[in-house]
Amino acid sequence: MTSTNIKLTYFNMKSLAETMRYLLKYGNIEFIDSRIDGEEWSALKPNTPFGELPLYEENGKVVSQSVAIIRYLGKKVNLAGADEWEDLEIDALVDTIKDLQIKLIPYAHAKMADNKEKQEELKQIILSETMPYYLKKFESIVIENNGHFIKDKLTWADIYFTTNVDIYNAVLDMDVLEKYPDLLKLKNKVEEIPSIKAWIEVRPETEF
Amino acid sequence: MTSTNIKLTYFNMKSLAETMRYLLKYGNIEFIDSRIDGEEWSALKPNTPFGELPLYEENGKVVSQSVAIIRYLGKKVNLAGADEWEDLEIDALVDTIKDLQIKLIPYAHAKMADNKEKQEELKQIILSETMPYYLKKFESIVIENNGHFIKDKLTWADIYFTTNVDIYNAVLDMDVLEKYPDLLKLKNKVEEIPSIKAWIEVRPETEF
Repeated sequence: MTSTNIKLTYFNMKSLAETMRYLLKYGNIEFIDSRIDGEEWSALKPNTPFGELPLYEENGKVVSQSVAIIRYLGKKVNLAGADEWEDLEIDALVDTIKDLQIKLIPYAHAKMADNKEKQEELKQIILSETMPYYLKKFESIVIENNGHFIKDKLTWADIYFTTNVDIYNAVLDMDVLEKYPDLLKLKNKVEEIPSIKAWIEVRPETEF
Repeated sequence: MTSTNIKLTYFNMKSLAETMRYLLKYGNIEFIDSRIDGEEWSALKPNTPFGELPLYEENGKVVSQSVAIIRYLGKKVNLAGADEWEDLEIDALVDTIKDLQIKLIPYAHAKMADNKEKQEELKQIILSETMPYYLKKFESIVIENNGHFIKDKLTWADIYFTTNVDIYNAVLDMDVLEKYPDLLKLKNKVEEIPSIKAWIEVRPETEF
């Protein structure tokens, strides 16, 4: 695969694109890691499929929708399930991890608007209800599957979870896995994969 | 496949479960169409994967997350893409159709709360901006692919779109495809598939 076959276009952020970068690095697939600013995005937006980033381009064809792209890359680098039912379990977990990310958006908005009162109110619910509800369930699944989301083995659900935890942590300014040692162990395991570890060491430093 | 292998659990609604029912009918797969009320749901909820409906059960294993289940069923009844790239295109379109559905939620809430002012304000934006933005793009794709979302053939993206239009129509009390003849033609084509047509004739009548 030559370096010009695949191009990822996103802002200079980890956020919604970082799982794609991890998967491409994991599969030793070369890609153009195009990072654009707001002005470039304004110029590009009208020519995108649905006005959204990140964009994934392969052999001149372009798509958006991050989870769809991540699933495609997960299959490409052999991190999909062993059969259709495992793929269903991965897809269901990933959409649930995405749901949790979406539940943090009102808090992120309150933070950006510097609305301290709203921020405190939402953070209280997130920390006492939302995060524990999901993280406890995720941890049970990971314990049951010997350190992974799906049957004792690495899948793209593990990678997606790892990069999403970085989003949760950045939004909430804390380590959300502090009380979840088995989830933290899984995240560390993903980040210790040599090609991913090497990427983390050289990638642009960004808050989100 | 015996009738007890597969069970779908949802409220007595089309909404998030109807694509699953269409796909199961399309594949002539028998299933238990379990419709529960609020009281039954309260009792069941703590024992579900993530406290959400619909639930899909096969051979005693249970999952939630509607799009994940729909993708699984799409593959089961041979309505997936011909290759990984087509599957990516289907997944990206389906998540975009879901995004449009999610954009109607604030309006649906204003309607339920009988907040006329908020309702009018949101409906105005939906009808003048949101729906045309997506529907025009969807129609271009369907025209380009000779009446389908993906290369001249029926896929689960077409089925998902068809049932989602029923959601848009029910929420907005109108026919959103009135000015989109090619999309309407696609919806009619799906509803004329004999097994789906037969299902529409006998299914419980519900508003949503």
